[in-house]
Amino acid sequence: MSESPISASVDYQRDGIQHGFLKLPHSHDGSAWGHVMTPITVVRNGEGPTVLLTGGNHGDEYEGITALLKLASRVQPEQISGRVIIVPMLNHPAVLNGTRTSPLDGGNLNRCFPGNPAGTLTEKLADYLTRYLVPISDVVLDIHSGGKTLDLLPFAATHRMDDKEFEARCLAGAAAFGAPYTLFMAELEGDVLFDSAVEGQGKVFISTELRGGGTTTPETIAIAERGIDNVLRYAGVLGGEVETLPSQALEIPDGDAYRVSEHAGILEFTVALGDWVKEGEVIARIHDMHRTGTTPQEYRAPYDALLIGRRHPALVNIGDTFAVLAVPR
Amino acid sequence: MSESPISASVDYQRDGIQHGFLKLPHSHDGSAWGHVMTPITVVRNGEGPTVLLTGGNHGDEYEGITALLKLASRVQPEQISGRVIIVPMLNHPAVLNGTRTSPLDGGNLNRCFPGNPAGTLTEKLADYLTRYLVPISDVVLDIHSGGKTLDLLPFAATHRMDDKEFEARCLAGAAAFGAPYTLFMAELEGDVLFDSAVEGQGKVFISTELRGGGTTTPETIAIAERGIDNVLRYAGVLGGEVETLPSQALEIPDGDAYRVSEHAGILEFTVALGDWVKEGEVIARIHDMHRTGTTPQEYRAPYDALLIGRRHPALVNIGDTFAVLAVPR
Amino acid sequence: MSESPISASVDYQRDGIQHGFLKLPHSHDGSAWGHVMTPITVVRNGEGPTVLLTGGNHGDEYEGITALLKLASRVQPEQISGRVIIVPMLNHPAVLNGTRTSPLDGGNLNRCFPGNPAGTLTEKLADYLTRYLVPISDVVLDIHSGGKTLDLLPFAATHRMDDKEFEARCLAGAAAFGAPYTLFMAELEGDVLFDSAVEGQGKVFISTELRGGGTTTPETIAIAERGIDNVLRYAGVLGGEVETLPSQALEIPDGDAYRVSEHAGILEFTVALGDWVKEGEVIARIHDMHRTGTTPQEYRAPYDALLIGRRHPALVNIGDTFAVLAVPR
Amino acid sequence: MSESPISASVDYQRDGIQHGFLKLPHSHDGSAWGHVMTPITVVRNGEGPTVLLTGGNHGDEYEGITALLKLASRVQPEQISGRVIIVPMLNHPAVLNGTRTSPLDGGNLNRCFPGNPAGTLTEKLADYLTRYLVPISDVVLDIHSGGKTLDLLPFAATHRMDDKEFEARCLAGAAAFGAPYTLFMAELEGDVLFDSAVEGQGKVFISTELRGGGTTTPETIAIAERGIDNVLRYAGVLGGEVETLPSQALEIPDGDAYRVSEHAGILEFTVALGDWVKEGEVIARIHDMHRTGTTPQEYRAPYDALLIGRRHPALVNIGDTFAVLAVPR
Amino acid sequence: MSESPISASVDYQRDGIQHGFLKLPHSHDGSAWGHVMTPITVVRNGEGPTVLLTGGNHGDEYEGITALLKLASRVQPEQISGRVIIVPMLNHPAVLNGTRTSPLDGGNLNRCFPGNPAGTLTEKLADYLTRYLVPISDVVLDIHSGGKTLDLLPFAATHRMDDKEFEARCLAGAAAFGAPYTLFMAELEGDVLFDSAVEGQGKVFISTELRGGGTTTPETIAIAERGIDNVLRYAGVLGGEVETLPSQALEIPDGDAYRVSEHAGILEFTVALGDWVKEGEVIARIHDMHRTGTTPQEYRAPYDALLIGRRHPALVNIGDTFAVLAVPR
Amino acid sequence: MSESPISASVDYQRDGIQHGFLKLPHSHDGSAWGHVMTPITVVRNGEGPTVLLTGGNHGDEYEGITALLKLASRVQPEQISGRVIIVPMLNHPAVLNGTRTSPLDGGNLNRCFPGNPAGTLTEKLADYLTRYLVPISDVVLDIHSGGKTLDLLPFAATHRMDDKEFEARCLAGAAAFGAPYTLFMAELEGDVLFDSAVEGQGKVFISTELRGGGTTTPETIAIAERGIDNVLRYAGVLGGEVETLPSQALEIPDGDAYRVSEHAGILEFTVALGDWVKEGEVIARIHDMHRTGTTPQEYRAPYDALLIGRRHPALVNIGDTFAVLAVPR
Repeated sequence: MSESPISASVDYQRDGIQHGFLKLPHSHDGSAWGHVMTPITVVRNGEGPTVLLTGGNHGDEYEGITALLKLASRVQPEQISGRVIIVPMLNHPAVLNGTRTSPLDGGNLNRCFPGNPAGTLTEKLADYLTRYLVPISDVVLDIHSGGKTLDLLPFAATHRMDDKEFEARCLAGAAAFGAPYTLFMAELEGDVLFDSAVEGQGKVFISTELRGGGTTTPETIAIAERGIDNVLRYAGVLGGEVETLPSQALEIPDGDAYRVSEHAGILEFTVALGDWVKEGEVIARIHDMHRTGTTPQEYRAPYDALLIGRRHPALVNIGDTFAVLAVPR
Repeated sequence: MSESPISASVDYQRDGIQHGFLKLPHSHDGSAWGHVMTPITVVRNGEGPTVLLTGGNHGDEYEGITALLKLASRVQPEQISGRVIIVPMLNHPAVLNGTRTSPLDGGNLNRCFPGNPAGTLTEKLADYLTRYLVPISDVVLDIHSGGKTLDLLPFAATHRMDDKEFEARCLAGAAAFGAPYTLFMAELEGDVLFDSAVEGQGKVFISTELRGGGTTTPETIAIAERGIDNVLRYAGVLGGEVETLPSQALEIPDGDAYRVSEHAGILEFTVALGDWVKEGEVIARIHDMHRTGTTPQEYRAPYDALLIGRRHPALVNIGDTFAVLAVPR
Repeated sequence: MSESPISASVDYQRDGIQHGFLKLPHSHDGSAWGHVMTPITVVRNGEGPTVLLTGGNHGDEYEGITALLKLASRVQPEQISGRVIIVPMLNHPAVLNGTRTSPLDGGNLNRCFPGNPAGTLTEKLADYLTRYLVPISDVVLDIHSGGKTLDLLPFAATHRMDDKEFEARCLAGAAAFGAPYTLFMAELEGDVLFDSAVEGQGKVFISTELRGGGTTTPETIAIAERGIDNVLRYAGVLGGEVETLPSQALEIPDGDAYRVSEHAGILEFTVALGDWVKEGEVIARIHDMHRTGTTPQEYRAPYDALLIGRRHPALVNIGDTFAVLAVPR
Repeated sequence: MSESPISASVDYQRDGIQHGFLKLPHSHDGSAWGHVMTPITVVRNGEGPTVLLTGGNHGDEYEGITALLKLASRVQPEQISGRVIIVPMLNHPAVLNGTRTSPLDGGNLNRCFPGNPAGTLTEKLADYLTRYLVPISDVVLDIHSGGKTLDLLPFAATHRMDDKEFEARCLAGAAAFGAPYTLFMAELEGDVLFDSAVEGQGKVFISTELRGGGTTTPETIAIAERGIDNVLRYAGVLGGEVETLPSQALEIPDGDAYRVSEHAGILEFTVALGDWVKEGEVIARIHDMHRTGTTPQEYRAPYDALLIGRRHPALVNIGDTFAVLAVPR
Repeated sequence: MSESPISASVDYQRDGIQHGFLKLPHSHDGSAWGHVMTPITVVRNGEGPTVLLTGGNHGDEYEGITALLKLASRVQPEQISGRVIIVPMLNHPAVLNGTRTSPLDGGNLNRCFPGNPAGTLTEKLADYLTRYLVPISDVVLDIHSGGKTLDLLPFAATHRMDDKEFEARCLAGAAAFGAPYTLFMAELEGDVLFDSAVEGQGKVFISTELRGGGTTTPETIAIAERGIDNVLRYAGVLGGEVETLPSQALEIPDGDAYRVSEHAGILEFTVALGDWVKEGEVIARIHDMHRTGTTPQEYRAPYDALLIGRRHPALVNIGDTFAVLAVPR
Repeated sequence: MSESPISASVDYQRDGIQHGFLKLPHSHDGSAWGHVMTPITVVRNGEGPTVLLTGGNHGDEYEGITALLKLASRVQPEQISGRVIIVPMLNHPAVLNGTRTSPLDGGNLNRCFPGNPAGTLTEKLADYLTRYLVPISDVVLDIHSGGKTLDLLPFAATHRMDDKEFEARCLAGAAAFGAPYTLFMAELEGDVLFDSAVEGQGKVFISTELRGGGTTTPETIAIAERGIDNVLRYAGVLGGEVETLPSQALEIPDGDAYRVSEHAGILEFTVALGDWVKEGEVIARIHDMHRTGTTPQEYRAPYDALLIGRRHPALVNIGDTFAVLAVPR
């Protein structure tokens, strides 16, 4: 496989703090010799473990972006031992555009791993992460949220693995984050996620969802910031104890937990995010937008469960996942 | 002034319930002889007052749209005395598009009053409301919310008028709605709002804001539905007493209450919607999206106040109003 | 009213044939000092009446455009006495774009009369026609068809007027065109059509519809070319007799003749253009595009009539006129 | 090759009729966990052959879409023996958009076979057809027409194959369809068509063209419906005899039969679809749209032939195939 | 006429230097309560004349924008006596978009005067200039250039007026600017230019063109900066003498000086900007882009003249002014 | 590898001159059976070497396009011995669109080599060049310039190769072109350029840059035309001696010679193209577009060098290469 076309303006081996860019050549109509410039911060203080902290894997998920931008502005090398690599806006063109995917190539970064140095711009970035940044990291924390179209209860997540010892380490990492909920998923499908690229190298991967809706609140930023500090402590880069708080352990039982709409219209929830629902209970209605006086479509819970996710926009289309359910683990 | 080009497929004088359309000719590339079709429901049961209920004045404000679609589906003529005219999606092209303004002509309906029968599509609709629907109504309830870009505490609102007796009736109408907050504004600027077109005809106009963010919750729909019933009772169309609940009386002291950003970037609030802030307290920060390691811009409260509104999206641009403050009345 | 900004590169008073442009200044992002250039041909041979021949009033109606381009290429001054002014592509930006309306300003030329020299580009052109070309003409033939979205039986049309003598002259002009059908409409609504601008100056105005669907056939071009020659003969500009052929006289009885869809989907006609339908007979069905197994919506004829027009595209939207009916006169 | 990401909400083995969807995950800016939902109907009545009926392979070809939507609504399991799988709108995003290709990825489905489970959305659908639906089918009928840009005489078609026994079966299938014309083509170029994916599995593949122009008529729908019934009878799924009608046998002699324009402008045909033309005869002219008074470009027939296809839109560009010729077989 | 909706964040009466914004409310889909924020700098030092310096009237004319941004950054109140108001980017949305006109409303600011407080955004800005800024100014310098689509020799310009004394003052102002060329135009057509709005109030208006092509060079910036200083000296706001340099006096004889293309294609100039051409000499050719081997169109000079302007882009369309000629005055 | 889908309407073996097209099938929404038609001219006069002359590899580089269109119009077979193949507009869709890359597939042709007969449209064209045109050529001249976004001193270029004998021939070819500057680059990175596809077949490849900015001047066209004639003479196709002129020999020392912006705003150069700069000297400033009164960003030269290239547009974005430096060789 050929060398990455991306060059970093920071030196990963240098002590101290550096703010720079990952420079990816991008020849386009507005700039014959242009670049995609992804901001990056590297903080290093002697030997020690490396934690890679990423946000903006999807460009409209602002909890991680905000908490990591704040961290990059305030962190001092002397506070840590080892190294922290911070990329708060992984899919930077998407972040600038306020969208999940890149406006340059339509790329959904988290469906592009392990990436390709000769592929699209988004695939080139995925490749750089896979072949350059993950190998020099010990723990990877990738902070997601529901983005503009979903609102998810705040949780850290991991999933079932064949290697039970590794699964336990990953679960410990997720628990260390300290979100109000901790979610255990079945095996990941496919191998196009950042998760797979990291775990395939035997590195601990911690993922989160921290609300969403295309906004943030003081509360969600606080969860993110506390979780980041906890992961740095868990990895041994930051001193002090992980701040343990009560967290509800949940799991997604099966594919029916993802409720997909077969109608388009105005979506009305009859239960709130975080409510418990009973089997057969109406959880949402969809109203026709084209005329008045019609009977709305009703959608019901397939089993007793907690509503851990919901579509944020009030407009819903056929095919949209509008509700996600979980049960206690 | 010429006749409106809009024709209604419902008969406003007929008893019973009718669901139909306001048909506005629109000759365009996709249909030489097409129409904009605005859904409308008319319920009439003998003589009595008329209440005009409108939502979707801005196409991305779903609380009124949803509550009025539900009312149109469930209301029975025998439950009322008099007449209810329901137009849940006033700017219907905007509602279909999920945007504040119409994709057909860029029209912001609530800046187009009193309208023009020979103007743009949006101006033609405003004119129809002004010259056909308002004159046959006694009370008008226009349900707004913050839409996709604002999140506002749930309140009914009115404003200062020269005619103090009329002001009192309007304030009574707003109070009857029964939202958690009741807001009193200074005089309206300009005369391009629906408010002006209604009040200019001596009719009681009640307006609301009921959260927003481009979504709804069971709680906001409940506020809207209770408010609608209350207004129908207040007007005498529905029997029973107005359901009085405690509501906090607020007012907007001056133009400084609207905080406008002079920076673009990632918006982080340090206080939550509904929090009280002190003069000089930081209420929000704006982070640079183009590089890491910068110092965020801080914005502070000009006086002690309640944060009654905030920008919903986490991306903010220069010129955006990102916070709205109010003080007790 | 100020002078038109349009200048013609042809001299209307000169004998012989000239091909040139109406030059309308248009300062835009692609050309600071650009122009809209509308092709025009003027043929003059001594004194005599003037006929103004126009096509492309809507940019997707190709029967008149084609027949007039052919006429401009083949006509010789010595064949005529008087003057012929040919503007085959009135809304030239729309013609280039293949659309009913102008891509430059969204202008539907035939809704912009009498025009405005200080208005939009389309309004400026309407004004030039009204104040410069119509006054020097005796007869105006404006060739329309259904365009991309309608398919109409080939007819020449006129409408009821208060001045019965003038009505008779216009009807005679329409009959002279010699289309297979001749249509008599009720009074025109509004005064924004080219018709009104011409008739208001006491000039005979002949309009046609000659199929459409965004295409032409040898048959429709032949109808257009024969009609043009007939009108030139009728006006005395071309020698010889009007070629009289049998033409069925029809009229549109009322607004119900225009059938407007209240559903979106796949449109299926159960009768063909030119078929007679009985009151209550199904004329079209609309099929849901979002799922299979549904019951299509049926639309029925309101009275016995001839199907003289139908929507051409198989996709139909709420508000589209999908069928036009007429009865014998 | 990996499993398809598509799941069907119908059970192909269940007796009776089911209407459902092929659910293809599609994570996009409007729905983080959305799906492309392709409507499908499965009718089964005991053991017997399986016929796969498809339309909307190109999204603007409405004859098959309409006839198959009607079939899905009216068919009763007891009418058949064996199984019928109906997918009326194969490229469903394209159908909703009214275009030949998908607006989601630009995919021309009929250039994407055999498909790819890890490719674009359109390639994923092609793969599902190739690896899941074709293997359980005995006969495949894929109903095409000219779409918005072509108008083709109604014909069923097949092509030359090395396996003469198989060629004969396919030709019999095409003849069974019973269109007014039956067309025999030279070998297909490339292997990206649905044809190749089906024939490569030894299944009979019948294709048609049934006019087009982006519309339908009662006549073309009738041809499609009769053809579908005939194919079901030919396959033994429907009882009764194939309804044999006279059909003219044609073939496309060589590449010169496809006439490609080297000019842009207004296209005028001098002969009608279905007319016989002589070698050297003018079949079309192209008129300059930018000025009047020019000499049109003439295009002539290369040999005696039948005009079996023509460009529908009156605007033509350099490179467009504007006429297709055939000769008797 | 109603009050302007624009408010300034600067105080025009305050001594010292202030950098702020003209705030124009703009309610749009991305910000319900947004604003267009036009940067402005006011420098005042006691009593004295006021000079209004403007650039970016068209958003792609960078010479004035750059020179005025530099002035705003470097000017010190103590250097001047009186007041300087600097608005370097008048049509700020256009400047951000890199286009001549505003992407928000298509507005060409210099065709919108005197403006309208209830009109489009661009008209509101024009009105603010006309009714608020021009009345408090004594001299207005509006720096234009050819923008992206034209390249014009560097000149200051004025035009013929009825009031000869005023004409002389304006000509003196233009001469004071000190560009290499000084141009005298015939009367301005229409009254939609900034020129008219200023001169109608009896204020000296100086306009320039300083090359263009969508770029700047050290040379053009130097001309702009020297010209600005000269105008400030001419007005008495800055001390010292106007820096007089030789300037060639030119005039535009008639409308034929503006050469308009009647062909589209690749534009090739045979003479350079600033060259003298002879009557009948070829000045440009236009090459067909659709095929090779054609004969290019030749355009010739109508009289002996200097080529003072040319189209910058190599692509030319029908209707584009591609050359401007002038003769010595 | 499969056969190319492209067919040429010219016969490369025929003596004389032919103007035709490379026809590439392109099935799209506007033409089901359309083609991309790339104009080509072939001139042959008996046996002899073949020179392939190409322009428009990037669609906005007009110097080669114009000079080659002129050559194709004026060249006579009897003037040459051997063969000249002229493709003035390689990426023809891009040329028509006035952009660097193709609007059809986003393809940057010069990043698509060696191409793919089953790939995108642009990759299919690259493949045709690689497998059909280059093999029958002896020398390839590909004329580039800076295009719309760069302005580069006029130079012919080659680069370091392992085969020193071949490097010398290529350098001789570049010198023969006779541009004012001759540039020697380090090894090419990657193998996606036309250069690699040609050199890999052992053919001499000559490339140029001849200013740019999206325009041409009589001077740049003259350089291109003289260079073309020189290359034809160098290859022995045209008689006479190469016209030797003084040319400055330069080289690009390292990656620092390409200056990349880390700021967005208005770009101001303090030195002109072709100026010598000293280490540490300011070469450009970037001014904030969002507010006045800020301090511009300064960019300095990393070493003594000649400014051989600069960004043409005055707007610059983060990541844009805005200056290119070279040193004497």
